[in-house]
Amino acid sequence: MVSDKFFAIVAGVGPGTGRSVAIRFSEAYPVVLLARSPESYNNVVAEISKAGRKAIGITADATDESSITSAFETIKKELPDFKLAATIYNVRPNSRPSRKPFLELTLEDLDTSLNGNIRGLFNFAQSILPLLLGSVEHSPQPPTLIVTGATASIRGSAKWSVIAAGKSGQRILTQSLAREFGPLGVHVAHAVIDGGIDVPDATHYPRNDGTPDGRISPYAIAESYWYLHTQHKSAFTQELDLRPFIEHF
Amino acid sequence: MVSDKFFAIVAGVGPGTGRSVAIRFSEAYPVVLLARSPESYNNVVAEISKAGRKAIGITADATDESSITSAFETIKKELPDFKLAATIYNVRPNSRPSRKPFLELTLEDLDTSLNGNIRGLFNFAQSILPLLLGSVEHSPQPPTLIVTGATASIRGSAKWSVIAAGKSGQRILTQSLAREFGPLGVHVAHAVIDGGIDVPDATHYPRNDGTPDGRISPYAIAESYWYLHTQHKSAFTQELDLRPFIEHF
Amino acid sequence: MVSDKFFAIVAGVGPGTGRSVAIRFSEAYPVVLLARSPESYNNVVAEISKAGRKAIGITADATDESSITSAFETIKKELPDFKLAATIYNVRPNSRPSRKPFLELTLEDLDTSLNGNIRGLFNFAQSILPLLLGSVEHSPQPPTLIVTGATASIRGSAKWSVIAAGKSGQRILTQSLAREFGPLGVHVAHAVIDGGIDVPDATHYPRNDGTPDGRISPYAIAESYWYLHTQHKSAFTQELDLRPFIEHF
Amino acid sequence: MVSDKFFAIVAGVGPGTGRSVAIRFSEAYPVVLLARSPESYNNVVAEISKAGRKAIGITADATDESSITSAFETIKKELPDFKLAATIYNVRPNSRPSRKPFLELTLEDLDTSLNGNIRGLFNFAQSILPLLLGSVEHSPQPPTLIVTGATASIRGSAKWSVIAAGKSGQRILTQSLAREFGPLGVHVAHAVIDGGIDVPDATHYPRNDGTPDGRISPYAIAESYWYLHTQHKSAFTQELDLRPFIEHF
Repeated sequence: MVSDKFFAIVAGVGPGTGRSVAIRFSEAYPVVLLARSPESYNNVVAEISKAGRKAIGITADATDESSITSAFETIKKELPDFKLAATIYNVRPNSRPSRKPFLELTLEDLDTSLNGNIRGLFNFAQSILPLLLGSVEHSPQPPTLIVTGATASIRGSAKWSVIAAGKSGQRILTQSLAREFGPLGVHVAHAVIDGGIDVPDATHYPRNDGTPDGRISPYAIAESYWYLHTQHKSAFTQELDLRPFIEHF
Repeated sequence: MVSDKFFAIVAGVGPGTGRSVAIRFSEAYPVVLLARSPESYNNVVAEISKAGRKAIGITADATDESSITSAFETIKKELPDFKLAATIYNVRPNSRPSRKPFLELTLEDLDTSLNGNIRGLFNFAQSILPLLLGSVEHSPQPPTLIVTGATASIRGSAKWSVIAAGKSGQRILTQSLAREFGPLGVHVAHAVIDGGIDVPDATHYPRNDGTPDGRISPYAIAESYWYLHTQHKSAFTQELDLRPFIEHF
Repeated sequence: MVSDKFFAIVAGVGPGTGRSVAIRFSEAYPVVLLARSPESYNNVVAEISKAGRKAIGITADATDESSITSAFETIKKELPDFKLAATIYNVRPNSRPSRKPFLELTLEDLDTSLNGNIRGLFNFAQSILPLLLGSVEHSPQPPTLIVTGATASIRGSAKWSVIAAGKSGQRILTQSLAREFGPLGVHVAHAVIDGGIDVPDATHYPRNDGTPDGRISPYAIAESYWYLHTQHKSAFTQELDLRPFIEHF
Repeated sequence: MVSDKFFAIVAGVGPGTGRSVAIRFSEAYPVVLLARSPESYNNVVAEISKAGRKAIGITADATDESSITSAFETIKKELPDFKLAATIYNVRPNSRPSRKPFLELTLEDLDTSLNGNIRGLFNFAQSILPLLLGSVEHSPQPPTLIVTGATASIRGSAKWSVIAAGKSGQRILTQSLAREFGPLGVHVAHAVIDGGIDVPDATHYPRNDGTPDGRISPYAIAESYWYLHTQHKSAFTQELDLRPFIEHF
């Protein structure tokens, strides 16, 4: 029996991009929200439920293989007949050193970046790609994996070394997955988010502050991700950039 | 008195991308179709009119300043109270030498590529950018210029020298316009079309032939262009790629 | 009879890069200096001759096919038994508009950039590539074509539109030639010169002024070009960047 | 008292690039060779010593902080009055999975790549950058750090995911270091080695086999590295590519 029921996963949910993406995809699918602590997803789950749509929050750490395995067991129990339609990898490293001179950084700072950006995506992709492959034939849209990148994904600016190492490795890993899984029918895309996100706590991106639309609306990111998910398989986008109209680049 | 009436221009209309884009944008705006000969746009104008929407065909050559000037005079007469919401530059050089050894090419071959890809866009952009700037305040979507690129826009493959010179110059010209006019509220985007277009006459791109969705659906390109046009100004895409899922890249 | 006598051509000689490159290559080969007027090369020819080495100045305009044809006839007369070992395309467009808002530019400004950067290189390459191919078997170093690029070759900054269109088209044309002629034994390389050149008249690049080595020494460029020329054919460089240590990039 | 004695370090020595680079730099400086086992450097140390030049082999693992610390203590003892002029990071991950479908890879495969390519460079750079900074004033050439990259540094090909993640992260980390330390006088460069190396054991790169110069001569790489080291500080190269003339790219 072929299931016509599909769900989506958003890994890395907080008050910004993750929340908006979860809300947007919940209009079409039940959504599973993954975050390292319930505080990160509880409000979003409540918000989606209140709107009469389905959301499930699961505490999980993408950088931990057993945590991911256990999360997927929970998913199987909660959504037994559902197949995976879309996944967004939006994990931000646990704590990230801001812009810092290289000689003041520690190996721990580097590992935080490599873990969240590369190892977490690796773990996560190993779990979800078989599920996406299993949805190719019947999914309403081409099964999709979208990864949230940043300016540092394509540029090693001075003093951004550890973040740049993690984000650029993540980007090229995503590109390799696109080349391997695209021909199998899975759409793997990468978005270079070039600018600050307009969330209350986003105080560490002071650029363009005070200008209307000087920061990226997380809803606008969510719209772009939804658009990527709905692209026809004869015209997949592998990468796009997103930045405020006033951003210097 | 502020006009709330907006129109779109598609420069470079034929049976492929231009036709699909014109049809897609005609759902929202009256569309002006530019081509070097009426045969290129007559059917598309008829198709749009038959669907009860408005389309105007104008014979013009983007590489010729006076031809462009005259086209915009016609537009002013035909759509006197309308403002420009969106423009797509989709012009293909008049005749393009296919893949050819460099020493067999002539300066004329090069000029054909530079004229259609760079000089035509330059002329066209000089005419439409003041109009788009004039629409920033009231346009339903951020006023938009979208340029159709190709694989050769980012890569100088062996024996594609003249096309690559023209397309890459066009791409970087577009990028410069994005950086100058973005902060003024105009969305300038470039699409790297990486694959053959699925039109009856596209016999010169034999790649992926016979595979369903092995060629790009021009409707899928039109959908992406429409999506670019509707992006919120806090999250403009400057460049995206579009390719069939099975394309090697 | 195989000639063991080789010469070099520097197209685009002035007081900066062209002069230094001509002097550096004259240590190994007789050099032909091309410029649009004798004032540009007379001093350099005198300087090289005074040092006991051979230099020939020829007035020519790379963007003019017949001028290039005539220059090569002169070369044949002056250096009848010599084969071509190396060529540097260092032509700067005749007059270049500095950084300028797009809507203040004219088609003439664009043509100046396209002519000097793309059409001139095209003409020149059509004349010298057959000569370089003819030198593959016996040249002391792999026959070489080096093209001088700039920051605008890889980036369309705001208000640099016409220069960026010309330089980026030139770069990708060079890349295409590298891919076509590399496997035939000709080394085609492109240098992205990212910074102001330290010549007396270079007053239009005020960046880093006053800092020792804040501008690029043209001798340093010449050394890099010579190095590119001497690379073993198992390890050709297609592109390198050159910038002052203090340059922001 | 200012030392006028300088030395070089090559991290990652085997029968290919590391050996050739060590030999080349030993012509100018005593060289320290680092490798995970003495078998990797013993022959090279003997070869350099036999030629009457100085080489010191030290067993060390760049991915292990304490191993690196201990190596630098040994260096201090062996070359007490010497300052660091140049360092090459040429470490290859301990064991690398060849081209492999993503779903057959393990987190261990990924970690091998991240450790050797990114974490090892991070550790190593933290130790050598203070030494290079200390040499800026008196070094005969600008103090230099060169990192050996690969095709995977700029491209995530299908089935090369873990190598591409490590190499691309390494490349952008290097770029960030170039931007931070260049203005302080340290030359940080990255070489994209695009092709197989011509060493007896390089059986896993069968491309171009049988063609003279179809594989990269490690001596040619060494010459390029030496050239990078000697560049004037008004014209640093941050990145160059190196590939056999017949390589498709």
